[in-house]
Amino acid sequence: MESPLRFDWEKLQNFCEMLFVRTGVSPEIAKIVSESLVQADLRGIESHGVVRTLIYHQRVEAQMINHTKEVEVIQEDDATLLIDGNNNFGAYIGIQALNRVIDKARKRGVAIAGVRGSNHFGTGAFYALKAIEQDMILLVLSNASQTMPPSGGIRPFIGTNPLAIGVPAGTQLPFLLDMATSVVARGKIIVAAQKGQDIPPGWALDKYGNPTTDANLALEGAVLPVGGPKGYAISMFIDILSGVLTGAGFGKYVNNMYENWEEPQNVGHFFLAIDINKFMPIESFKNRMDTYISELKGEPTAPGVEEIMIPGEIEFKGALDRKETGIELPINVVTDLFKLGQRYDLDLYTALLNSKEVNLHVSE
Amino acid sequence: MESPLRFDWEKLQNFCEMLFVRTGVSPEIAKIVSESLVQADLRGIESHGVVRTLIYHQRVEAQMINHTKEVEVIQEDDATLLIDGNNNFGAYIGIQALNRVIDKARKRGVAIAGVRGSNHFGTGAFYALKAIEQDMILLVLSNASQTMPPSGGIRPFIGTNPLAIGVPAGTQLPFLLDMATSVVARGKIIVAAQKGQDIPPGWALDKYGNPTTDANLALEGAVLPVGGPKGYAISMFIDILSGVLTGAGFGKYVNNMYENWEEPQNVGHFFLAIDINKFMPIESFKNRMDTYISELKGEPTAPGVEEIMIPGEIEFKGALDRKETGIELPINVVTDLFKLGQRYDLDLYTALLNSKEVNLHVSE
Repeated sequence: MESPLRFDWEKLQNFCEMLFVRTGVSPEIAKIVSESLVQADLRGIESHGVVRTLIYHQRVEAQMINHTKEVEVIQEDDATLLIDGNNNFGAYIGIQALNRVIDKARKRGVAIAGVRGSNHFGTGAFYALKAIEQDMILLVLSNASQTMPPSGGIRPFIGTNPLAIGVPAGTQLPFLLDMATSVVARGKIIVAAQKGQDIPPGWALDKYGNPTTDANLALEGAVLPVGGPKGYAISMFIDILSGVLTGAGFGKYVNNMYENWEEPQNVGHFFLAIDINKFMPIESFKNRMDTYISELKGEPTAPGVEEIMIPGEIEFKGALDRKETGIELPINVVTDLFKLGQRYDLDLYTALLNSKEVNLHVSE
Repeated sequence: MESPLRFDWEKLQNFCEMLFVRTGVSPEIAKIVSESLVQADLRGIESHGVVRTLIYHQRVEAQMINHTKEVEVIQEDDATLLIDGNNNFGAYIGIQALNRVIDKARKRGVAIAGVRGSNHFGTGAFYALKAIEQDMILLVLSNASQTMPPSGGIRPFIGTNPLAIGVPAGTQLPFLLDMATSVVARGKIIVAAQKGQDIPPGWALDKYGNPTTDANLALEGAVLPVGGPKGYAISMFIDILSGVLTGAGFGKYVNNMYENWEEPQNVGHFFLAIDINKFMPIESFKNRMDTYISELKGEPTAPGVEEIMIPGEIEFKGALDRKETGIELPINVVTDLFKLGQRYDLDLYTALLNSKEVNLHVSE
């Protein structure tokens, strides 16, 4: 086994940013998209990390993402926003929606933003974390292209539509949930396929509706919803708020980023922001969160469990760790990114943390 | 096997209503509470049906519910409400919160209400259905007393905190999700215990943290969250919005309706209402919902599955059916209700549908 390749997160982010800029993307948009990708890697969500630089770049080249058209507010009222992303980068559209919904929530106590005409927007945690920094509670939903059958069905109809929730705390870590409504994120199956690994039983069906542990067959088939009918129902609700309500695609009308090269994705998102101060002073709320979390973490643990974790805790700690020890990328991702960098006169290896230890054979 | 006892839903509701009124509860409150219970039975959610008349009545008698104190708005802003239920009946408090949040949402497009000082409020579907009738999207959350361990824990810490969502459609049935964040609702384990039946593996742990299929041991132990860490996280979020944010109980500070006879429950709820018209004309939305639902229901089905169902569909059809054929109640529930009725000079059997066919031995 050779040493894994580890990258300095800031340099890696800079590499991605420059790469988008040299493709013609504005520095502002390039920065947001790259931050979203690298933050996912830092938090250990490698399926949503810099691996996606490649597909985003391909979709820009194929004119499936239009990074020159500004995000537009279509309809606006006291506490509601309807936004058309005009097919710009998902993360850029997401940040525009987030900033606006937080502004409104600060005035009215609560606000919602529906978004249409968007693309894959990275992790929901990216937005939830920014809301937490501003002492806001955020719920963010997105639909996605078809990957899961409804309960009783065999064919993908709904996406693994994710939801993310951020809630600030005081001295404790904040509550940060970011989950797909599938048993696992489809990205994890993509990663398994890239690594040539099997997936556990119960994750997916093949394209004929049979259970499978083959990651490649699973990608052709359907991922299963978490908790059966409950996951199916929550995913459907996310599709309703993100897609049906906003005028975005829903069900089969959300296009697959990897497979459809004829049309924009037309992904929809939904943001809900709550100003805690309308209920109690923020400090009282944070004290109550701290009590809640410390009591929960003080519970007796099952055999073999060292510590009870709250949602997001593993990722927070992982991010701190990776800021020191670097982001480890699979060799095929490194190869692809390196080659893409070469096209734009950018050297991925300047972002390596352990360049002296490793044989840079991937560049050959 | 003797014929089961079937009750006319309107007469049964009237029986419960009169029973509460003769206990001293105001007709308005008695009507709401009884409607909530009978609607649950109609929809096949017997765990939340008239079986709960007994515990509600006991808590009124023990002065653990204070039906004479009015619901109070503690804090109010453009689109937010903080409500203290003052320990009245949960369903009455819930309806007060629902009416106010819908009024506000109609003005602002979106509104939220946090509720503290409440009791068990019946099914979330009760509120979601009323919102659907008014063309509103509703999300309603409630916390509950401790029944589930966090992931990695063994002891109950969070409740099976339910969420319900209602979304109107056009010619299709509306979307109506009402779920506990446990693998199953604790009420189903209560029903199994009452019927002397075993529960399936995977539903619960006994009080030592071992898996069990014994319903009685499960009631002493812990119900498991749906989807492991995902259900745990969603349940925790519901506790945060319903309890931490509102000033209600959370975690161990929500008291058990069956076990704690010293203090009020201090349950918390959270309501979010969305006015669809701020996004698109309601008729366009309903058309889109109809497209979505009909395409989903048109999907090929797995072997042995007759029809793909949307959330709430089974219950809608069941309710229509039970309005004709009656509500069937287990014999022990009938016996208890009959005896309670006798105390207030009310005859449960006047509500029977098939009184001529059955031997009314339960009254002996």
